[in-house]
Amino acid sequence: MKNPPVVAIAGVTGAVGQEFLRLIEQRKFPFSELRMLASARSAGKTFDYLGKTYTIEELTADSFDGVDIALFSAGGAISKEFGPIAAKAGAVVIDNSSAFRMDPDTPLVVPEVNAEAVRRHKGIIANPNCSTIIMNVAVWPIHQAVGVERVVVSTYQAASGAGAAAMDELEQQARDWAAGDAITQDIFGRQYIWNLFSHNSDIDPLTGYNTEETKMIKETAKIFGDDDLRVSVTCVRVPVLRAHCESINLTLKKPLDENAARELLAAAPGIRIVDDRVGNRHPEPLAASHEDDVLVGRIRSDAGQAPGMGLEIFVAGDQIRKGAALNAIQIAELLL
Amino acid sequence: MKNPPVVAIAGVTGAVGQEFLRLIEQRKFPFSELRMLASARSAGKTFDYLGKTYTIEELTADSFDGVDIALFSAGGAISKEFGPIAAKAGAVVIDNSSAFRMDPDTPLVVPEVNAEAVRRHKGIIANPNCSTIIMNVAVWPIHQAVGVERVVVSTYQAASGAGAAAMDELEQQARDWAAGDAITQDIFGRQYIWNLFSHNSDIDPLTGYNTEETKMIKETAKIFGDDDLRVSVTCVRVPVLRAHCESINLTLKKPLDENAARELLAAAPGIRIVDDRVGNRHPEPLAASHEDDVLVGRIRSDAGQAPGMGLEIFVAGDQIRKGAALNAIQIAELLL
Repeated sequence: MKNPPVVAIAGVTGAVGQEFLRLIEQRKFPFSELRMLASARSAGKTFDYLGKTYTIEELTADSFDGVDIALFSAGGAISKEFGPIAAKAGAVVIDNSSAFRMDPDTPLVVPEVNAEAVRRHKGIIANPNCSTIIMNVAVWPIHQAVGVERVVVSTYQAASGAGAAAMDELEQQARDWAAGDAITQDIFGRQYIWNLFSHNSDIDPLTGYNTEETKMIKETAKIFGDDDLRVSVTCVRVPVLRAHCESINLTLKKPLDENAARELLAAAPGIRIVDDRVGNRHPEPLAASHEDDVLVGRIRSDAGQAPGMGLEIFVAGDQIRKGAALNAIQIAELLL
Repeated sequence: MKNPPVVAIAGVTGAVGQEFLRLIEQRKFPFSELRMLASARSAGKTFDYLGKTYTIEELTADSFDGVDIALFSAGGAISKEFGPIAAKAGAVVIDNSSAFRMDPDTPLVVPEVNAEAVRRHKGIIANPNCSTIIMNVAVWPIHQAVGVERVVVSTYQAASGAGAAAMDELEQQARDWAAGDAITQDIFGRQYIWNLFSHNSDIDPLTGYNTEETKMIKETAKIFGDDDLRVSVTCVRVPVLRAHCESINLTLKKPLDENAARELLAAAPGIRIVDDRVGNRHPEPLAASHEDDVLVGRIRSDAGQAPGMGLEIFVAGDQIRKGAALNAIQIAELLL
């Protein structure tokens, strides 16, 4: 790998692609060359970035010659087709799609949890699902300290997880509603403003679990390296733009009181405690938006379990940032 | 009690008071006389209802002479002061506030669960908290059939629970946002649109539980008549106008597969199943609004518990209707 590396961004025009650019600037991520890749539709467009004019190139099999790090966020089909090509060309692929997450040869990494797994890559490293990342950052310090036997989690997920067009539709619905117009509903097929609904991913007709829920279960087991961890999960979309919240109930293997839990979480990387009982200020999606840290609050011993054996927390994390682009950039930083 | 009874509505101008009027009309609730009671501020105002012009009277100690059934929804302080006076005057009080719910002499009733408790009243019957009612209707059929050992519930609560002014502020925020104006935030002290937040009731600084959560725990134990039931609960407000949702995870005492659970729930009173895995249609607050039934869906065996011993459901119920006014009217119907 050259130092500084040649970096390619596959899907640079998307919400996560644009966040990659912001993060490379903010974190002064080093590069000797940046390749801006997207579909043929965007190819040829130019834009200024860090004092230079870039031209978007069409993503093709030839895009990765000489590339050291390829950040993919262009959907699963593109990752499946071009990820292995980029890896074969010598790049380390950091893939934001679900295409390789459960592949035994592909590390699945949340840097705050299993940074060392990066070393085992064979050309591709997978970035986990957004809801998984946000939960894992908050639960891992507790799991490491006393062992978590069971997680029961319900999500409050933002529109951003369904893409920039979904965010636009939600905003348009607010304008439609305020104007007294018919509510635009091209993407979700329903009114989203003043509403919420079960996550829009496909549901397994046999088990009743949707794909988002299955990801949170399977990915967490892989990232934590713990197949015994039991995860019960319900994924829900709420009318919020870009940060996910999760209500997380833990059953512990060894007792941990809420003060010890709060200290553990406060000292853990990637977490900011927002837990003001008097002022009633706790993690909220607006406060988490555009932030690096996962906000953790409502930390309390669970009255519904044996004393010290249960813990409740409520978390909020930016879906586009820590849930996607930031986690990938952190993985890239581990590679340097 | 006269037949038909003399009915008084204390707090007739509020959201629940207005819903009482709609329900009395829709359900043809019999009455020989209706007394419309409210604060001095509203006294003297007139309105037409069922072909007659009514004048709102100021609620005083003399308001209940000759009243058979007094529906109270004017806040806890009014209930505490005037509830016992109305009972002493011979009325049966059905109180929507939290004032008497945990009083051992006051039945706390969800008609689908413990209708027989109505018989034990000593002049006051308490209507449970909205979130409690909605959860109880959905969980009771399972508890009755196989026993529920533990409930883990996270709520998605509407603005309506904080009153009509809270609903107005949320709507005003959408108009403010669409117009690019500063966001009105007189009631909740924060932007509510595109946001969500821990329930606005007071938090016990020692336990970290807010009052809404404590109500759900204690009231459910009283209504189910089961002090051993363990309830872990997190209450959250989402930007929705008038129906609450709840993500409910159950640990069962005896195994129950999801098909048996679905049949039980479908046959239970007050429930409508909305559980379409192929079309991905499940309970949503907009669909539950203005409906009598609690919508129940996402019925599935919990992959995080031993086979058949865990169940996940997602429910939606109208906060003003079944969560308040309808439940009270159903109690009144039991009295007739």
